[in-house]
Amino acid sequence: MVSSRHSSASLSAGYDVRQPQLRSYSAALPAFRDNTDTPRHFLERCLERIEAVESDVQAFVAFDVERARQAADDASVRYRGNRALSPIDGIPLGLKDIIETRHMPTGMNSPIFDDYVPRRDAACVIALRKAGAVLLGKTVTTEFACSRSGPTRNPYDTDRTPGGSSSGSAAAVGAGMVPGALGTQTQASVIRPASYCGAYALKPSHNLLCYDGVAPLTPSMDTIGIFGADLEDVWGITAAMEAVAPGIGGPALGLDPVMPSAVAPRRMVRLDTVGWAEVDDASRAEFERVLGTIAAAGVEIIDRRSSPDVEALEQILLEVPDISMRIFAYECQWPLRSYHECGDRLVGERVLELLALAESMSPLDYRIACDKRSQLRKAVSALGEKADGFLALSSSGPAIADIAYTGSRHYPVPWSLVAGPSVSLPVMASGGLPVGLQVMGPHASDISIMSRARFIRDLLLNY
Amino acid sequence: MVSSRHSSASLSAGYDVRQPQLRSYSAALPAFRDNTDTPRHFLERCLERIEAVESDVQAFVAFDVERARQAADDASVRYRGNRALSPIDGIPLGLKDIIETRHMPTGMNSPIFDDYVPRRDAACVIALRKAGAVLLGKTVTTEFACSRSGPTRNPYDTDRTPGGSSSGSAAAVGAGMVPGALGTQTQASVIRPASYCGAYALKPSHNLLCYDGVAPLTPSMDTIGIFGADLEDVWGITAAMEAVAPGIGGPALGLDPVMPSAVAPRRMVRLDTVGWAEVDDASRAEFERVLGTIAAAGVEIIDRRSSPDVEALEQILLEVPDISMRIFAYECQWPLRSYHECGDRLVGERVLELLALAESMSPLDYRIACDKRSQLRKAVSALGEKADGFLALSSSGPAIADIAYTGSRHYPVPWSLVAGPSVSLPVMASGGLPVGLQVMGPHASDISIMSRARFIRDLLLNY
Repeated sequence: MVSSRHSSASLSAGYDVRQPQLRSYSAALPAFRDNTDTPRHFLERCLERIEAVESDVQAFVAFDVERARQAADDASVRYRGNRALSPIDGIPLGLKDIIETRHMPTGMNSPIFDDYVPRRDAACVIALRKAGAVLLGKTVTTEFACSRSGPTRNPYDTDRTPGGSSSGSAAAVGAGMVPGALGTQTQASVIRPASYCGAYALKPSHNLLCYDGVAPLTPSMDTIGIFGADLEDVWGITAAMEAVAPGIGGPALGLDPVMPSAVAPRRMVRLDTVGWAEVDDASRAEFERVLGTIAAAGVEIIDRRSSPDVEALEQILLEVPDISMRIFAYECQWPLRSYHECGDRLVGERVLELLALAESMSPLDYRIACDKRSQLRKAVSALGEKADGFLALSSSGPAIADIAYTGSRHYPVPWSLVAGPSVSLPVMASGGLPVGLQVMGPHASDISIMSRARFIRDLLLNY
Repeated sequence: MVSSRHSSASLSAGYDVRQPQLRSYSAALPAFRDNTDTPRHFLERCLERIEAVESDVQAFVAFDVERARQAADDASVRYRGNRALSPIDGIPLGLKDIIETRHMPTGMNSPIFDDYVPRRDAACVIALRKAGAVLLGKTVTTEFACSRSGPTRNPYDTDRTPGGSSSGSAAAVGAGMVPGALGTQTQASVIRPASYCGAYALKPSHNLLCYDGVAPLTPSMDTIGIFGADLEDVWGITAAMEAVAPGIGGPALGLDPVMPSAVAPRRMVRLDTVGWAEVDDASRAEFERVLGTIAAAGVEIIDRRSSPDVEALEQILLEVPDISMRIFAYECQWPLRSYHECGDRLVGERVLELLALAESMSPLDYRIACDKRSQLRKAVSALGEKADGFLALSSSGPAIADIAYTGSRHYPVPWSLVAGPSVSLPVMASGGLPVGLQVMGPHASDISIMSRARFIRDLLLNY
């Protein structure tokens, strides 16, 4: 049995990009194959870590330990027989608590759904189980993935937010409790908490993965996101879901179970976005350092100063937070209206604000916002032809010292509108806290973007 | 108080297109306005009719009489004060039992959902309540709108099927129990039962109405359909829903609350479809008679014999049942897989057949079927430019004498793939049973098709 990469005793005092608290599953696969470790032992180490830090982090709302142990034992038998179902066979996972599961409640952090146990599993849950994944527990979400924060703390400073809305999934992975977890992103809810909690994450192209059985908010942007202890885990989870439950009418990329090889980008676009103004000096310096390393490896970086096309895109990005909020509010009035009708005091203030914005909009207002989104997508596609991807911060600096506020959405939100893939790499530290580097591409460029993200990860961490 | 148009004592012995069992709400509006009738009285007449015939028809699975009476009283007060909320203020409605409601169970005709009470209302339910509608009860659906039939009987012959999957909604309207009801159509589930039960119905353009809160089967085809005692009721219900809850990313037509005026078509396309071979002689003769009347009114009818374009479309239509079934099965594997996992014996045989078909298909098979659907849509759009709509039977003859079989889907299914509006007019009788005339148009032509359907209704029934 291999030892874990860190003590299970307590949370790290500060973020070190070379010694994160992450618990990789892909790194354990060789030991499963030569019978020096098993998925069951891996699960038990996760449970030890959970036992040690969950009271501080509060990432989970429900566990299904008995079924998880049975599933891990089944996977252990398969590895012994060289019959593993997939590269994620036996991986313990957390599931954001808006994803329907038959064997665990789905509470959406709302008193309206207290003790609610769905009579079905989401499509992604069925797909993961088919790949051998161990569904260990449900993770904290903000209320309906859009309103009141839950109790979860940042795994690098429990006085700080983990980000949201996929708070528990990001924190559970960032704290090394599980090697992977599912979240959802409508505006910022995967990339932002991944940045704050030091987790790897992918928000794939919109509709790459089937959303059936996940509580819908804003169907034109709702996207399942994947948190992982490394890029390989992120990829393995994503590919397993797409193989069985691809999005209806989505890009249908047919992802290989094995992550694409690293490919050096020739040219990448640096984006400052509307978030740059709110970024602290230390995070700015880290971003410049990282971009310098990438440039020094021979990648041409173009930006608003060197390219009029990039400057034109930056101008469009200034409008993004407003456009996104309007589309978001207009679509998510269903189901929020219905929840509001259950009783004023049963929903958070944010729900009322969103409903007020929706009420103030006409169908024409909504259409105008959608048209602007189309213009953004065109601008990104055009620039995407001339470069091998886009680079930006994953958040406006590290997690802030406020448990009730999930942070600025300015950095992740553009790629929710673009509907393309966005990867967050936990390769920067600012004031002892993690900050992610975002690697993005046009719609359906998930495979190529992952190969570029892998190159950058290898470069920055000297893999 | 006005008298009802028919006795509440029993079901009609045979179908007479001039004396149907339908209970129009729009026809009662003048009496509400001059205070000789009230929505509450109207509701009580519905309840009397239900009392008289429900034990034979078995259209409902749940009632909410107390709330309905309160809502009807509220509407009565509004009419007295000339403050009616809409042309359907006070209308008693049935809702297919896959539409989520907070105050009534939503059982989907499945033991898995026995006693399931959702914690939210569907968007269409909220919209209807806002327009003043009286939500009287939930109506029988086939299992998950795709499998085992319920107990509902045809209101013109209780040995016959009402059709499905919106069995209860069609039968409740056809029997005069309510003036309107909601159903859903993925392949044939609104137009077919409307035809069999002698109800008016509209399957609007795909995504004209928000599907949020209705159990999804096949998102690329699932459509809310409206049954009504007359065209005006159908239109009023549709417009009220679209005003508040239009489909996300849908055509957003902004329907006027008042039905469009009758407009004479200059030219219409007659379609035989693959269903023609199975139509009985009496229904064929009725269809010819009706088309003769329309032609005699100055409408040019083109068909496969007179037009090579129509013949080309008819050739495409031969493939429609297969294309539709493949798209249907591939998409509805979610959520059917999950229901199947609840237990083999808890789901009907049809669920297993659909899952087997889905399992046999690759993502490429699905894409090929979708491409063929696109070709059909293009052919319909091209022909639609040269004509003012399409005419076909609504079903392959009248309801068949088998309670367990909901009938052939050959007539309604083409317009589910086309995603355009389809109206069923109960203007034909065959062997003492109703058969509908289908009036269809390209995607988003709902307003124009309703004005043509109105012309045809007026012509055939001498309005």
